[in-house]
Amino acid sequence: MTKAYVHGYDQRESIRLQDQAITLVDLLHSDTTYPVGSRVLEAGCGVGAQTVTLARNSPGASITAVDISEKSVTEAKQRVSAAGLTNVHFQQGDIFHLPFGPDSFDHVFACFVLEHLTEPRVALQMLKGCLRPGGTITVIEGDHGSAYFHPDSDAAHTAIHCQVELQSRAGGNAMIGRALYPLLVSAGYDAVRVSPRMVYVDSSKPDLVDGFTRKTFTAMIEGVRQSAIEAGLADPVVFDKGIKDLYRTTEGDGTFCYTFFKAVGNR
Amino acid sequence: MTKAYVHGYDQRESIRLQDQAITLVDLLHSDTTYPVGSRVLEAGCGVGAQTVTLARNSPGASITAVDISEKSVTEAKQRVSAAGLTNVHFQQGDIFHLPFGPDSFDHVFACFVLEHLTEPRVALQMLKGCLRPGGTITVIEGDHGSAYFHPDSDAAHTAIHCQVELQSRAGGNAMIGRALYPLLVSAGYDAVRVSPRMVYVDSSKPDLVDGFTRKTFTAMIEGVRQSAIEAGLADPVVFDKGIKDLYRTTEGDGTFCYTFFKAVGNR
Repeated sequence: MTKAYVHGYDQRESIRLQDQAITLVDLLHSDTTYPVGSRVLEAGCGVGAQTVTLARNSPGASITAVDISEKSVTEAKQRVSAAGLTNVHFQQGDIFHLPFGPDSFDHVFACFVLEHLTEPRVALQMLKGCLRPGGTITVIEGDHGSAYFHPDSDAAHTAIHCQVELQSRAGGNAMIGRALYPLLVSAGYDAVRVSPRMVYVDSSKPDLVDGFTRKTFTAMIEGVRQSAIEAGLADPVVFDKGIKDLYRTTEGDGTFCYTFFKAVGNR
Repeated sequence: MTKAYVHGYDQRESIRLQDQAITLVDLLHSDTTYPVGSRVLEAGCGVGAQTVTLARNSPGASITAVDISEKSVTEAKQRVSAAGLTNVHFQQGDIFHLPFGPDSFDHVFACFVLEHLTEPRVALQMLKGCLRPGGTITVIEGDHGSAYFHPDSDAAHTAIHCQVELQSRAGGNAMIGRALYPLLVSAGYDAVRVSPRMVYVDSSKPDLVDGFTRKTFTAMIEGVRQSAIEAGLADPVVFDKGIKDLYRTTEGDGTFCYTFFKAVGNR
């Protein structure tokens, strides 16, 4: 598992992930509920932004949440505990070397994880190894190539491309959403079904303008400014114009579109 | 109303529009039904691909379908008649010089029309002039900038850009979908609400692979080959590779995404 995350684990990122989870919670998670007594593995729980929702939507399920970062596990534990949830067990662990035998789980859940991995197909195969026959995997990923907006802006696309390129150089894939179907199929899952979750934002939706366009997406792109410039991926003037143009889409006549992909497959 | 349509009116285009209507009918139209007795204007009915659905979904409504092309009106009339529908009255007419007074219609419907107009906002204002107070307008448009796919391909994006640029040179806007919200607001409509209709295609959906990716979208881009090359917008080798790469997305491990936008506003 590559440790060179693009997103990083600083405070601002933590807030951003939390904002993201609050704003997009229904869109991404409302149709994921597991039966009472089911054993669920959350692979790559990070700081627990999704774990809280997962545990809340399946109060009778027993959730094991794993992340490679001890620090993230600690933060996730605090977050879940603060939310008053008691059905999550945390454990530090690497997706590529999980300490679970076959048939350990009824369901696996992985959100915003595969995008960071050099070998997402292998990870999916590893996770399949922990599932009981007939168990399911649910994968949620974004796709930065799905971002478009009004007014359109070449500079904004350049800035977005910097993030995509940096994540690619770190071994990940920021445009993995569109590829979930072939990935799950090639990893051996059956009955794979993918549903896109498009976020469409215009000024009639002020919560999304602020919570998604501004504080989630644009903040994330803005966060790679230094790395992008140091890597020679963009002229600072162009990058800064790109960010300005992304914020421009939050004005009264602007619109912003982005799509997440949710895939479910059976072992 | 600009007469320089990019799509043209040849036989193949007519079949393509028909294929498109059949494949996307539910996604785009199922939530548009007008009450018994309501007076509906379809502005820019073209060859009647959408008129059939409109008339079928609102059998008690009285529909007036207008197009600037006499030839298209004749074809639309035949198509609607062949479908056994009797609630449509056809009339040749220009959106910018409509022969209807104020309060002539309860509802206006326009699908794949604004994308061809140099002044879509003015067209929307003209249509507003025919509506009764409290009447609604429904607008459906695509957005070629919303197309992305797996495997990704620069050549395919170049080929798509040729279509966008040709349509722009003809006075239209092939990326108008994302701009419907500000367009309707600036034309003076109230309570404007936009809902994106994303078409997501993978090989578990063979009807969409064939009906949308292959016969609707890629066929349309392929259709501008000669014009794009003559205009010097793309090297023939690159363009042909782009088309090949678009067809590549229809293979077992390919995916294709495109988004239509549906906007409704009140007078």
